[in-house]
Amino acid sequence: MYKMYAGEWAGTMCLTEPNAGSDVGATKTTAKRLPDGKFLITGTKCFISSGDHDLTPNIVHPVLARIEGDPPGTKGISIFIVPKVRVNDDGSLGEANDVNTGGIEHKMGIKGSATATLNFGENGKCIGELLGGEREGMKIMFQMMNEARLGTGMQGLAAASAAYEHAVQYSKERVQGNDIMAGKDPNAKPVTIINHPDIRRKLMWMKSHVEGMRSMCYFVGYCMDKSKVAKTEEEKANWEGFLDLMTTVVKAYCSDKALLVCSTAMDVYGGYGYCSEYPVEQYLRDEKIATIYEGTNGIQSLTLVGRSLGQRKGMNLMNLFGEIQKNIKKMKEQKELGKHTAILEEASNACLELTMFFVQAGKAGNFMLPILNAYKFMEIFGDVLVGHFLIDGAGVAAEKLDAVYKAKKADTAEKQKELNKADIEAAFYSGRVASAKFFAVESLTTVKARCEAIKMDEKSPLEMTEEAFAV
Amino acid sequence: MYKMYAGEWAGTMCLTEPNAGSDVGATKTTAKRLPDGKFLITGTKCFISSGDHDLTPNIVHPVLARIEGDPPGTKGISIFIVPKVRVNDDGSLGEANDVNTGGIEHKMGIKGSATATLNFGENGKCIGELLGGEREGMKIMFQMMNEARLGTGMQGLAAASAAYEHAVQYSKERVQGNDIMAGKDPNAKPVTIINHPDIRRKLMWMKSHVEGMRSMCYFVGYCMDKSKVAKTEEEKANWEGFLDLMTTVVKAYCSDKALLVCSTAMDVYGGYGYCSEYPVEQYLRDEKIATIYEGTNGIQSLTLVGRSLGQRKGMNLMNLFGEIQKNIKKMKEQKELGKHTAILEEASNACLELTMFFVQAGKAGNFMLPILNAYKFMEIFGDVLVGHFLIDGAGVAAEKLDAVYKAKKADTAEKQKELNKADIEAAFYSGRVASAKFFAVESLTTVKARCEAIKMDEKSPLEMTEEAFAV
Repeated sequence: MYKMYAGEWAGTMCLTEPNAGSDVGATKTTAKRLPDGKFLITGTKCFISSGDHDLTPNIVHPVLARIEGDPPGTKGISIFIVPKVRVNDDGSLGEANDVNTGGIEHKMGIKGSATATLNFGENGKCIGELLGGEREGMKIMFQMMNEARLGTGMQGLAAASAAYEHAVQYSKERVQGNDIMAGKDPNAKPVTIINHPDIRRKLMWMKSHVEGMRSMCYFVGYCMDKSKVAKTEEEKANWEGFLDLMTTVVKAYCSDKALLVCSTAMDVYGGYGYCSEYPVEQYLRDEKIATIYEGTNGIQSLTLVGRSLGQRKGMNLMNLFGEIQKNIKKMKEQKELGKHTAILEEASNACLELTMFFVQAGKAGNFMLPILNAYKFMEIFGDVLVGHFLIDGAGVAAEKLDAVYKAKKADTAEKQKELNKADIEAAFYSGRVASAKFFAVESLTTVKARCEAIKMDEKSPLEMTEEAFAV
Repeated sequence: MYKMYAGEWAGTMCLTEPNAGSDVGATKTTAKRLPDGKFLITGTKCFISSGDHDLTPNIVHPVLARIEGDPPGTKGISIFIVPKVRVNDDGSLGEANDVNTGGIEHKMGIKGSATATLNFGENGKCIGELLGGEREGMKIMFQMMNEARLGTGMQGLAAASAAYEHAVQYSKERVQGNDIMAGKDPNAKPVTIINHPDIRRKLMWMKSHVEGMRSMCYFVGYCMDKSKVAKTEEEKANWEGFLDLMTTVVKAYCSDKALLVCSTAMDVYGGYGYCSEYPVEQYLRDEKIATIYEGTNGIQSLTLVGRSLGQRKGMNLMNLFGEIQKNIKKMKEQKELGKHTAILEEASNACLELTMFFVQAGKAGNFMLPILNAYKFMEIFGDVLVGHFLIDGAGVAAEKLDAVYKAKKADTAEKQKELNKADIEAAFYSGRVASAKFFAVESLTTVKARCEAIKMDEKSPLEMTEEAFAV
């Protein structure tokens, strides 16, 4: 398999079938034992990213399938290595392995990936080798899936970040309209659109989300690293606990918000943004898949509420909120950010209280309350985490900024503003402080109201008949 | 011009130029007087919808241009009728009128419209005729523009409505996963996805927005009709006042929310929704332009806050909130919707109070507070209006539903639920009541917090240097 590491051969992940998407347990692809220990694979997989192409001489497919006689559901699923072209003992390529392409999807975006329907064993000649043990398919697949979920959140962050940076650049170049205080004076000199308050608000909205999501993604990477060098089992479990708790949030929150960031960036560009000549149009189309693949954001939210919150008897959650509260305590002392930290504190308390409310509702048999509101909880939790990372980062930035001001003897507001233009460090640090303030007022101020709304236990969506969805 | 009414010739609206989009006053296209009273037109217009095509033998362009010597800005703009092909006195087509296509845009959506850059008078031979009086271009154009803004809101509603209806249909057909209470039991019978709580929440979110936006659009149409048959000047002014106040909200709110409805519909479809085989993919791409064209939603929001709120010394606003409060008073008595009406009341009061806060801030010289938060106000105002129309409609629906139940002797909860399946009227009315409840808890519960957040007067986006937007 070094040919895959070397990039000489490509690979896929064959999980989804036409009737087994979110419900992997419904997998119908079968594996029949052959005398030599290999398996005959038969079935159809769809939505296979880079499923077929001519970029490499071979493509290696890991395929989820059920060995004949194994139980239904996820417990009976194994995973097989199925190359497109068989490989001879000397490593050279042999004959075709009966993996046929049923079609390539026409999609809104990610057009660089040939999303294929693959028919395995149409002619009864598709041979696969078991990867790992029998019926260990889900466990093995999830090694990839957890990384893929983080990667999908990262994809959202990447699209959002690129869209934001392009929008900032464009807003500094595009001249349109007068300064708002000059009104319609035809003799006023038109300004670049970054001077318009509404454009600044849009940029700030994007900036704060991009920075907060980036911090969240980096923190998860940090947890992965720390878990690998942990000195005790408990320490390792704590770092992995953060990872388990936050994986779904990184995936769902970042992909959801990134769509809005891309859309807002397009609004900054105006009509030009809607045209393929500028990059944002593609970012928006490419990004949207991230809310769907590697487990829809609805599924992520259910996993978060139904499984992650309660893992290790809630210890992961308590550890995370413990960290948040520690930082809040520190930041409340900070002169400039004290007010905004107080907003974070209220939001964080409301979010934590809501998780306890979920537990109580479950104990009282009202499982549907947390289930129906799982997605809303994911949004709230994500906002609290992003708000926390922003405030925490702003605390560091504020100290650094003070140091720059002192070193450069900027002791008045005017001198400091000049430095925030001329000095790249001062500009960056002052921007980080501003992001944190903005996000707190913009997003964290509504968290408590959103939590209270969930507690109202409005069940109309569940009580309706299917027919009542008519309009 | 009857050929345009008959659809034999097509038409456009030539407003935008490469450097005059949101800032129409920057129009550079010129009109030079000819001895016969006609004008020689010279200039470039861009983003012209259906600007060039072969579907009709002629295309008639109304073109904004400045007559030589007229003042700069919007006050100096006139409007001209410029056919693609000149028209002889007998109505037959003559020679080409020197209107040349510089290019066709490649866009994310609305690909049925050839969005063109048009060069008028490249060879000094483009002749136009003045429409209306000189320097009346903006007034005349705005007749179209007001209708176009309502039409753009309607475009959002249409895309959202179609996306929602397709999503409902799909969710009733697509079988995937077990009933959530059956967990992962491999022997459980898989269900249609409309049975999943998160899918129901998504459908309900779409449904309530679609119905609320539809009511808002219909109300605006009703105001137009009523203003035409008004018996007194005052009555006419009141109906037109609602129209003036709500036009920007219809445009901006409906186009913004429609994007989210389309995106949510795609999430309901899962991977299939991202493929062109299903309709939602196109709806999302087509709809996005609605947040931008006919005046970006940022501009609409500034118009709302900077002009519409204060029109007729605020009387339009007071009349509208008077109507809302009247309905609230009525609906609070209604047994089933009383709690939800109370949520509307709190939201409505907070919104009205915020408008007064804006006035006070302006009096104190803090114009930037309402300007920076114009977009947020538009969202709040839209939510309150939609919430109001939903509750108001639900009041009617609840009465009708009671009548159906009585007529069909459905006097128990079970019988009523059966009727909500079997009877098309009961299904519809019960769905309307559910929408109103859901929207109140979902969207109106955060209005007060959002208003309070605006009052915090967070100015970081304005205080930052341009350089601080770096990430």
